[in-house]
Amino acid sequence: MQRAAAFVRRGCSPRTTGPWGRSRSSAAAEASAVLKERPERSRRERILTLESMNPQVKAVEYAVRGPIVLKAGEIELELQRGIKKPFTEVIRANIGDAQAMGQPPITFLRQVMALCTYPNLLDSPSFPEDAKKRAQRILQACGGNSLGSYSASQGVNCIREDVAAYITRRDGGVPADPDNIYLTTGASDGISTILKILVSGGGKSRTGVMIPIPQYPLYSAVISELDAIQVNYYLDEENCWALNVEELRRAVREAKGHCNPKALCVINPGNPTGQVQSRKCIEDVIHFAWEEKLFLLADEVYQDNVYSPDCSFHSFKKVLYEMGPEYSSNVELASFHSTSKGYMGECGYRGGYMEVINLHPEIKGQLVKLLSVRLCPPVSGQAAMDIVVNPPVPGEESFEQFSREKESVLGNLAKKAKLTEDLFNQVPGIHCNPLQGAMYAFPRIFLPAKAVEAAQAHEMAPDMFYCMKLLEETGICVVPGSGFGQREGTYHFRMTILPPVEKLKTVLQKVKDFHVKFLERFA
Amino acid sequence: MQRAAAFVRRGCSPRTTGPWGRSRSSAAAEASAVLKERPERSRRERILTLESMNPQVKAVEYAVRGPIVLKAGEIELELQRGIKKPFTEVIRANIGDAQAMGQPPITFLRQVMALCTYPNLLDSPSFPEDAKKRAQRILQACGGNSLGSYSASQGVNCIREDVAAYITRRDGGVPADPDNIYLTTGASDGISTILKILVSGGGKSRTGVMIPIPQYPLYSAVISELDAIQVNYYLDEENCWALNVEELRRAVREAKGHCNPKALCVINPGNPTGQVQSRKCIEDVIHFAWEEKLFLLADEVYQDNVYSPDCSFHSFKKVLYEMGPEYSSNVELASFHSTSKGYMGECGYRGGYMEVINLHPEIKGQLVKLLSVRLCPPVSGQAAMDIVVNPPVPGEESFEQFSREKESVLGNLAKKAKLTEDLFNQVPGIHCNPLQGAMYAFPRIFLPAKAVEAAQAHEMAPDMFYCMKLLEETGICVVPGSGFGQREGTYHFRMTILPPVEKLKTVLQKVKDFHVKFLERFA
Repeated sequence: MQRAAAFVRRGCSPRTTGPWGRSRSSAAAEASAVLKERPERSRRERILTLESMNPQVKAVEYAVRGPIVLKAGEIELELQRGIKKPFTEVIRANIGDAQAMGQPPITFLRQVMALCTYPNLLDSPSFPEDAKKRAQRILQACGGNSLGSYSASQGVNCIREDVAAYITRRDGGVPADPDNIYLTTGASDGISTILKILVSGGGKSRTGVMIPIPQYPLYSAVISELDAIQVNYYLDEENCWALNVEELRRAVREAKGHCNPKALCVINPGNPTGQVQSRKCIEDVIHFAWEEKLFLLADEVYQDNVYSPDCSFHSFKKVLYEMGPEYSSNVELASFHSTSKGYMGECGYRGGYMEVINLHPEIKGQLVKLLSVRLCPPVSGQAAMDIVVNPPVPGEESFEQFSREKESVLGNLAKKAKLTEDLFNQVPGIHCNPLQGAMYAFPRIFLPAKAVEAAQAHEMAPDMFYCMKLLEETGICVVPGSGFGQREGTYHFRMTILPPVEKLKTVLQKVKDFHVKFLERFA
Repeated sequence: MQRAAAFVRRGCSPRTTGPWGRSRSSAAAEASAVLKERPERSRRERILTLESMNPQVKAVEYAVRGPIVLKAGEIELELQRGIKKPFTEVIRANIGDAQAMGQPPITFLRQVMALCTYPNLLDSPSFPEDAKKRAQRILQACGGNSLGSYSASQGVNCIREDVAAYITRRDGGVPADPDNIYLTTGASDGISTILKILVSGGGKSRTGVMIPIPQYPLYSAVISELDAIQVNYYLDEENCWALNVEELRRAVREAKGHCNPKALCVINPGNPTGQVQSRKCIEDVIHFAWEEKLFLLADEVYQDNVYSPDCSFHSFKKVLYEMGPEYSSNVELASFHSTSKGYMGECGYRGGYMEVINLHPEIKGQLVKLLSVRLCPPVSGQAAMDIVVNPPVPGEESFEQFSREKESVLGNLAKKAKLTEDLFNQVPGIHCNPLQGAMYAFPRIFLPAKAVEAAQAHEMAPDMFYCMKLLEETGICVVPGSGFGQREGTYHFRMTILPPVEKLKTVLQKVKDFHVKFLERFA
């Protein structure tokens, strides 16, 4: 993808729009659409207002693209208008969007996608044979041999077969059934679909959904939308954000008085917390789910993003099967994966899959019915998923380049994970757990009492106040810990480690300088 | 796209899989996943069952991919296993999936998409310059200049600008604001998002949503999911499925006793009914919405599919503005378009947009927040939408081929619309209104009393019974009218007009022969 990189350089002037292209102007426009004032005309009252709208939607919060990101958009607009700032560009370290940060796409993946998109290219000598073969295989499984046809609601058949084969390989031979694979519009779609089917009951029998704190705010948003009850269990920050089963027990015990806990969500590797769960921990969680009769949701979208040499990724599915038939034929599990993270970072294609285990056959029918209302996930995203689960193998023409590109991305991420941890821990008043996996740092920041008071005077959460100041003074956009949840009285922020190494070093240095100044100001 | 067509022919053997490729085997597998029986092991009770699941999801029905389509999948499996049938292939005339029926993609659209997917191709001499220019424009507006980055939640900026320019052109200069454009994952996504925000209240103040009967079952499905109240207004079959405002008044009057009618959905051109609304009718509907304080949803995905020389497409937006400021600054309107229909038929990319008019600024903020939870619509679908709203213009290299391809598709559809109407109306016991637009016939079938009794004995709706027999005896898969709603005691089915002309003639002849035999059998 050298050409793509060259195109990035040519495509925009670093002075006015920076190396992240025009995405920011688009986000800025989004901010402006929300914020700019309309001229007041004499009008009838609106039908759809904050008062009359769906209160569950009103209650939704989504910090990763919340007020701080709208503010970032405003600042970008101001920079474009020539307003002077102590920085020349906004750096969006708020979202795990690798390619927006300059990570090049995997060549083989894009070659296959281009061939599928425009099959005339199957005659072109500039594409490798294995890419052509793969494109043909995908197209033959599509209606009319085209990415432009709807697929089956559950996803293209041969892609689901490839997903099943991948899972079987990944899990050392534990079998996976293509009938249990559902392709999705990113992992978010799968997670919200399963939760949507699960939720029922009113009053004290409303469905309780257990989620980690800190969590990825998709969970709280969907729970709010569905009018379910969010049951928090706290990860153990003192212990590298480990999931402690005693804490699960506390949470479920306390929840039982006022709701019906039905589902347990686990994110491994953790987002925003970056911990990688041990096999033992996963066993304990599964045993707990079995004991408490909880439906398990395993968000495993960062399964390729493990950096710490002491950690390995263990899938919930594999551990479940290794625990024997009492578990493997009883525990209901849905696990999720995506094209957006890993080494490919194909967020824009909205590809993903879920595997369901022990789902009641009638519920599988209900699931297909519900999915069919939206017709199908984007077929291009399904094709991208296929390449992620079925990459070139040794002996194939594209294998070497593919492996080189993959290793380069993952090697860089591992380096940046260590760099970030080390640098944050050098700053007084910042503590950062090891980034064992995923693609975020979630350091704890110790804020002086005067800063907390100043935040309260501005009616802001203290870490929101901190992050707003960071954004206004350095142009660096990170997400306050309050958007993910945290123990009362503790403060954090989430920052991606996706900028290129040199850029990341600058960012970290700027955060450090800002933090030191911030402590002085509010000492 | 000659190469694509050749590939279709090479890609599969007509004997075993037919000209519609392997999509059917994938759908068949879907059917089998739902239907095949699992070995009974000794098991604990499941957490997620029909009894414990979300009752609103359980209530959802979606006929376009419902039981008849599952049955079609079963039959395909049987054919594959060599079981003899009175036909050799299943013809899926149940869903508006043009490319699955052999319609080739628009070359320019796919060229731009391929260039965006794999920018190395920008150096290739085999792509026209206007396609390259367009791809560069789209990529420059994407994060990291890549389709693989998330876009803003509302969609890529320059694509929203192109949509606004398209609407302005289409509506003869009525201005459109890019801030009011939201790119979506197909039109279904936009429709369900707007309804989701609108719905509120319990008991007698539950939100009522007015929908046409017959309707496209996305509406009833979403209303059920959201636990809103479906308020039916009946289209006038005797009068070419016209929308009659007196009927709207009846419906809203009767609804007011038990819910709070807040929204009015209109599908123009009609699905499944194929009527194209007159300008006068649209004015009446808008006046009614203004009078009754209803939020208008205008589903205009078939805006390019108008065949009858006496009809033209008028957008609700344009008519709204022409009615003067009392309407244009007061009536809240969301209108929807898609890449899936028209002349492009790019269903698989899941592209679409909605334009909102007079939305309260705070609600626009809520909308962006809600959309941001799912991050963004597929960026490849957004790019496809761009080409639909901004096609090549005279003087550009690709203009001629583009126009030829577009006219060919639309010309063929017009021919098939007439052919279908004429042939159905020659069959005793079938009455078919003119197919003025969209891509479906929705003929009324007059079923003998004995057939109705036989259906009741099978616990089936009479038209479901008819369609099942049609499927079992001819392999033709159509959707019973009961899946769309119809006046009590009337029966219909929906059939797409998408098969190629010669194929469609055969299909129509087979339906005719079946119908005559069916009447004899139940005389």
